[in-house]
Amino acid sequence: MSSPGSRLAFTVAYDGSDFQGWQVQPDGVPTVQETIEEAFAVLCGGERPRIHASGRTDTGVHARGQVFHANPARSGYEPDKWRESLNGLLPASIRILNVRTVPETFHARFDALRKEYRYFLFAGRVLPPDLRAYRLHVRSDLDLSAMQTVASHWVGTHDFTSFSARRGDGEEDPIRTVFTSEVLEQAEGLMFRISANGFLYKMVRRLTGALIEAGQGRLSCDEVLQALCTPSKQSTILTAPPQGLFLWDVHYSEHDED
Amino acid sequence: MSSPGSRLAFTVAYDGSDFQGWQVQPDGVPTVQETIEEAFAVLCGGERPRIHASGRTDTGVHARGQVFHANPARSGYEPDKWRESLNGLLPASIRILNVRTVPETFHARFDALRKEYRYFLFAGRVLPPDLRAYRLHVRSDLDLSAMQTVASHWVGTHDFTSFSARRGDGEEDPIRTVFTSEVLEQAEGLMFRISANGFLYKMVRRLTGALIEAGQGRLSCDEVLQALCTPSKQSTILTAPPQGLFLWDVHYSEHDED
Repeated sequence: MSSPGSRLAFTVAYDGSDFQGWQVQPDGVPTVQETIEEAFAVLCGGERPRIHASGRTDTGVHARGQVFHANPARSGYEPDKWRESLNGLLPASIRILNVRTVPETFHARFDALRKEYRYFLFAGRVLPPDLRAYRLHVRSDLDLSAMQTVASHWVGTHDFTSFSARRGDGEEDPIRTVFTSEVLEQAEGLMFRISANGFLYKMVRRLTGALIEAGQGRLSCDEVLQALCTPSKQSTILTAPPQGLFLWDVHYSEHDED
Repeated sequence: MSSPGSRLAFTVAYDGSDFQGWQVQPDGVPTVQETIEEAFAVLCGGERPRIHASGRTDTGVHARGQVFHANPARSGYEPDKWRESLNGLLPASIRILNVRTVPETFHARFDALRKEYRYFLFAGRVLPPDLRAYRLHVRSDLDLSAMQTVASHWVGTHDFTSFSARRGDGEEDPIRTVFTSEVLEQAEGLMFRISANGFLYKMVRRLTGALIEAGQGRLSCDEVLQALCTPSKQSTILTAPPQGLFLWDVHYSEHDED
């Protein structure tokens, strides 16, 4: 049973097609954060808590396992009751998957040890309509083996400046450690799976852009390595569009896992 | 190069969420057939051909490989040009996958030798939002082995009256031959795959309903066999909702295949 104001961590999935990204925008456009905070307000007598995610996602990017924390001003709700009550108020495009009580010091962003993204590509001639918001359609043949080689080079600790975009809110440390980076064949295309201790702005979409260009033979493995070894903000690497991208999972310390 | 009015067969995929089924409705609600016929009218100087599908699909049912034929009143278009031109006019929820010239006697419905449907189930606790229009969420645990046994009994030639619903447009022969009927495990749930020489109205959704009830232990294999052996219009078998259902493929004679 949670006390009023005690801290909870929420795992949430959403269909990014319906939102202008995660973060609350000043002009009242629909965002995931805004929509969830409004649902909390209904359950907390109009008091709208600020919720804190593991990181923002851009317009059109989906999530299967985003995590946020909040201290909602309502007592007497078990974690499962929070899940059911929020899902009863939220649109079908946002689903709370799991709720757990966490220490007051828990922070969804600063305590994240590992995040995993997945980017889905469809390589056939015509993209099936049911996949149009969830796959990137790549019309040309892709060299899977070249893509796998390129992806493998990103594992380890590197300066990913060449694979990021400026967000305009100050400089951040461009060093990240990538744990997993692989391209897998799937029933209807390819999936790029990457996990790291964190990601720079638009990093997954630019890594995906480089992978696609490598798969199309327009970028060699050497050129990708060069971009990794020579950090540059003038890099011309393609940024893949958002619709194939899913924030899949966020991991915290061992004892926080389900 | 097609002559004006020569017969073409079109393979089409659509997202059924956006339409009130395949068939043109008198009250002008959006249907797949209506939308495609309107696109043809733009390309044929306002002349709207009637198109003929392999069969209707209900509201919310999707297609990956529906087939229709038409004799559009426009000359000088290669099959690929028809595909590109129609896709340029159609909404993203409908995509023409393939066009081929067929004999004047070809009929998309009467010449179909085999149709395949797939029904996708998601069995986790919360349905991910990106799958909400394309999977049926089954909350209880399902006994896969019981479902596989039940599915296997449908292979062969049977009277499927107990697994159909009245359409109200007269009686049809209730005997159908099922070639494949199987339940497969997938990454995020189960898939029921069935092919037959034809299907009665709502037959796939009622077979799926029976499978789910068998998987939940609410219907025994004997009861399903009983319903198959004793054709009855009073059968109380559940009709599964449309959103997990895809018309996957329609096969014609050998020489018509791509």
